[in-house]
Amino acid sequence: MSPYIVIISTGSELTAGRSVDTNSGWISNQLFELGWKVKKFVTLPDDPNLIFSELQSLQNLSKEIPVLVIMTGGLGPTEDDYTLETVLKLTGKTSYSVEKAKLRLVKIYEARGKEYKDILPNVFRQTFVPEGCKTLDNSVGIAVGFIENIGENSYLVCMPGVPSEMTEMFKRRLVPELKKLYPRENLLQKTKWLWNIGESLFQNDFIEPNRNEFFKDAEWGVTANRGYIKCIFQSTNEELLTTIISRLESQYPKIISDDVFQFVHEQLLKEKYTISVVESCTGGLLGKKLTEQAGSSAYFMGGFLTYSNELKSKLLEIPIETIETYGAVSDEIARVMVDGLCQKTGTDYGISITGIAGPLGGSDTKPVGTVFIGIKDPIGKTIVHHYVFPGNRESIRENASNTALFLIYQSLKGKDV
Amino acid sequence: MSPYIVIISTGSELTAGRSVDTNSGWISNQLFELGWKVKKFVTLPDDPNLIFSELQSLQNLSKEIPVLVIMTGGLGPTEDDYTLETVLKLTGKTSYSVEKAKLRLVKIYEARGKEYKDILPNVFRQTFVPEGCKTLDNSVGIAVGFIENIGENSYLVCMPGVPSEMTEMFKRRLVPELKKLYPRENLLQKTKWLWNIGESLFQNDFIEPNRNEFFKDAEWGVTANRGYIKCIFQSTNEELLTTIISRLESQYPKIISDDVFQFVHEQLLKEKYTISVVESCTGGLLGKKLTEQAGSSAYFMGGFLTYSNELKSKLLEIPIETIETYGAVSDEIARVMVDGLCQKTGTDYGISITGIAGPLGGSDTKPVGTVFIGIKDPIGKTIVHHYVFPGNRESIRENASNTALFLIYQSLKGKDV
Repeated sequence: MSPYIVIISTGSELTAGRSVDTNSGWISNQLFELGWKVKKFVTLPDDPNLIFSELQSLQNLSKEIPVLVIMTGGLGPTEDDYTLETVLKLTGKTSYSVEKAKLRLVKIYEARGKEYKDILPNVFRQTFVPEGCKTLDNSVGIAVGFIENIGENSYLVCMPGVPSEMTEMFKRRLVPELKKLYPRENLLQKTKWLWNIGESLFQNDFIEPNRNEFFKDAEWGVTANRGYIKCIFQSTNEELLTTIISRLESQYPKIISDDVFQFVHEQLLKEKYTISVVESCTGGLLGKKLTEQAGSSAYFMGGFLTYSNELKSKLLEIPIETIETYGAVSDEIARVMVDGLCQKTGTDYGISITGIAGPLGGSDTKPVGTVFIGIKDPIGKTIVHHYVFPGNRESIRENASNTALFLIYQSLKGKDV
Repeated sequence: MSPYIVIISTGSELTAGRSVDTNSGWISNQLFELGWKVKKFVTLPDDPNLIFSELQSLQNLSKEIPVLVIMTGGLGPTEDDYTLETVLKLTGKTSYSVEKAKLRLVKIYEARGKEYKDILPNVFRQTFVPEGCKTLDNSVGIAVGFIENIGENSYLVCMPGVPSEMTEMFKRRLVPELKKLYPRENLLQKTKWLWNIGESLFQNDFIEPNRNEFFKDAEWGVTANRGYIKCIFQSTNEELLTTIISRLESQYPKIISDDVFQFVHEQLLKEKYTISVVESCTGGLLGKKLTEQAGSSAYFMGGFLTYSNELKSKLLEIPIETIETYGAVSDEIARVMVDGLCQKTGTDYGISITGIAGPLGGSDTKPVGTVFIGIKDPIGKTIVHHYVFPGNRESIRENASNTALFLIYQSLKGKDV
């Protein structure tokens, strides 16, 4: 039995439009993986009356059906953080300071060379939770999260609004608790990525024709990302899931992948390959993505940012005439960039990116979105790929660097790239 | 008299977390400029029952106070677009097709070489509105928006969910109507950034002592970001706002700034300075940030990613012994990195970043978060700054690259860095 799920985000910066709430969508996606659909998102300013009346009406609803409320924000140290006080008013409970969280706070301050007495009293507020609740400890920040019973089979979960704290707490602490609170039959899930294809085309070409055969006993969902869509399939029938995935693989052999970020990281470590990059239009974004995971120093050596033609020439010894002949955004320049890169760095893999991120600089033959990506593999073969990515400047740069990671994936998989 | 404002977004792709709602924040920001604060965002799936019960409870609320509901989405041609039918159920009205919109639709089809008979009947659905409402014509797409009276001084506005259609309709058609419905005085706003200071310390040191003097006739808000907090002040009293800002400037002379991203971009363009970077722990993130704005090729030349010590030595000719003596994360190495960089690139400004992003690699003397940032300015002076940034790997990298931008800002402003 699934609860009626509502996600609440609090923060005046959200309702004022100064920040965009990404927490609710992220939580909803994660809950989908547990087999649950969210009924409603609510975003409220840091106003204790508004928060209270929203929670109260959900508490009333819990007299009729099981309700699960997941609320983020308002657990910080400042006076406009009202979550705890509102929950106490709702439940009529008192609060206490979680000893472990207090010790952790003191340690963090000491590590910064400060003493106990330097800690402002309001900072300690973050270690308080309602008595008798289930606590959710925070391994990233300070504020402690908690789960409070608000009715029969109904719970209110409070977590910090800082995404890095919330996501870690959600995965490590909340998911196991939710599975205990709302046990359900084992839902299996498989996820695949498809590259450079739109959601609606995928739905038209894969979901519709297979609707009767597959999607009576399986659910599907698609998340659009920059360069790829993530296709998620869920069912309690493992065999059916396997059939769906193999149909997907045979329909899209050249553009299908698993989680590229994870695979590239693990496989480069495993094969002890090194990699370097030379970036033009992405300005460092590929390097940033290749160093997101701890331990990336084992394979990522570095490289060059050659945004200007002058530096393409100076740092990689590409004659200015060659650049002028072919244009900086061309198959030829992507090729000499990656070859020059690997000569300088001596890594097993090399990647070059040169393109037109726009909004200006496009032409009839090379419109905005045109990107050439060169990849040199460990046996020394260089291939240059040509793309025209959609969207604005940010989207084109994200597309280009994600697609570069897909090319490394394909090469590591031994597939044609 | 301000109405109680609620913004509703409908769309199952939103509550499933497959898309992020940017409409609500945008609308809220626009309303803020009209002097209105939004009380609540609600996001609902394409479910007519959930939409109806939400609207009904807001209609009930309008018996007590003036309510303004602005709803986006659900006006399209497909079977999961329920807005019109739900509004008709709420008001007990019938609907009619807006003649002007119908003609426009036919014209659009003709322009694409199609005839009247090619238009699928459900496409015409988008031209229908409730009888007796105020219509909001759509100059970008097809669906007609409308304003419906739902109680005394209370209105329900329905607009399409496509951002380009909604924003145009909002500015051109809705704002003049809202000004007529709810006239009020002008609210002013000023924003400043403070660097490497926590929200709670700011509140303690600035807001509390000035509460009586400043914040009876002015509102304040703080948004925490990586490396800085954004402080926003609002009042109808311009003189008071000026006094608040000058007090802020005199209290925090060394860490205050305007929008650093915008200023650095504009000032580098204006002064015709060039810049290059050499990044270790940030892996390209600073370069990415410096190339986010169109036109950055006028100042950003490129640089080096020297993630490994080997490449620090190879590309910048720093002797391996020097790195071993001081450690790659040190004042000395940040200095020779930026000096080596500028020798190779010849740019006016140079920035080097070397640090420990973690989670591993920290020590007692150099904990995780330790970052050295070197800046060489156009007169050739090099200064290295030492920081210990809080948070996880991602946070430390964001902090480091944002702070590097702040150092460029300070130098461009002629302030001590």
